Amino acid sequence: MKELEAALILADYISDIPDFPQKGVVFKDISPLLRQKFPETVERLYSLCSWDEVDVVVGIEARGFILGAALAQRAAKGFVPIRKKGKLPPPFFSESYSLEYGEDTLEIKGNDTPLTAVLVDDVLATGGTFQAALKLCRKANIQVDCTLVLIDLKFLHQDLESPVPIHSLLPID
Amino acid sequence: MKELEAALILADYISDIPDFPQKGVVFKDISPLLRQKFPETVERLYSLCSWDEVDVVVGIEARGFILGAALAQRAAKGFVPIRKKGKLPPPFFSESYSLEYGEDTLEIKGNDTPLTAVLVDDVLATGGTFQAALKLCRKANIQVDCTLVLIDLKFLHQDLESPVPIHSLLPID
Repeated sequence: MKELEAALILADYISDIPDFPQKGVVFKDISPLLRQKFPETVERLYSLCSWDEVDVVVGIEARGFILGAALAQRAAKGFVPIRKKGKLPPPFFSESYSLEYGEDTLEIKGNDTPLTAVLVDDVLATGGTFQAALKLCRKANIQVDCTLVLIDLKFLHQDLESPVPIHSLLPID
Repeated sequence: MKELEAALILADYISDIPDFPQKGVVFKDISPLLRQKFPETVERLYSLCSWDEVDVVVGIEARGFILGAALAQRAAKGFVPIRKKGKLPPPFFSESYSLEYGEDTLEIKGNDTPLTAVLVDDVLATGGTFQAALKLCRKANIQVDCTLVLIDLKFLHQDLESPVPIHSLLPID
């Protein structure tokens, strides 16, 4: 019950913007949440994973950087960015995928030694971005032990198969 | 002397990539620093500002999100993103500027009540992005009291006039 109340309070700081960035898509504007409830949000996300064996937080560009980097700081871990196409100098690993509106490519730097990670993004929709990120982590020698998203739009999932549980502060069925 | 030694240690985790993202530009790859020295870097940046009167950290997309969000978490403050064109739903404020390679536009959400902020980015080069960010903050009712960049490429500054001091862990003359 306390969990539900807390989730409802956070939800008050997120607004639905219909038809953005294109017709038929409902954009989740988390700006008020970031401005007014940032440390609380990070703390609640932090509590959803076990951190003892974790080396790094992997955050997905761009809003996954915001929550991911704050979680890395909270947990005193390193941070590994998954970037959009063209932002990383070679060598890197690459994955293309379809997303709610269009297609995109993500890239990550490789690692010589294996790392254990928590994977973080702001919104989980169809799961395309998320599954590409999981594939990239495998290629980059990173084992994902826990995944965190702020908002999980479960009704939009498409053939989402995750080998690790997806934890969310705001799951929407 | 201790400051200099610490800066040199951090510098070991940043590599110069010549001719990326285009010929003539030297890209600063901070991936090793983020992965291996993240909490130390955040702590050292944190120590360069006074935080008592600060409401929020403003971070510039995309790598400014990483350091900015971690600093917001460290200081228990809110986070306000300055985004690239097309990422924010209206209404927003907008600023166009020339950067080291090309032109770009940044956008920010407005605020009804005035806020005091620390402005954060990863690299300061010509200062174009930085000055556009300062202008955006003014438009958005945000007073910037302190500015932090990881790397300050002072030799690239072009007519850079900042009303507040720019603090950097790695100033390069």
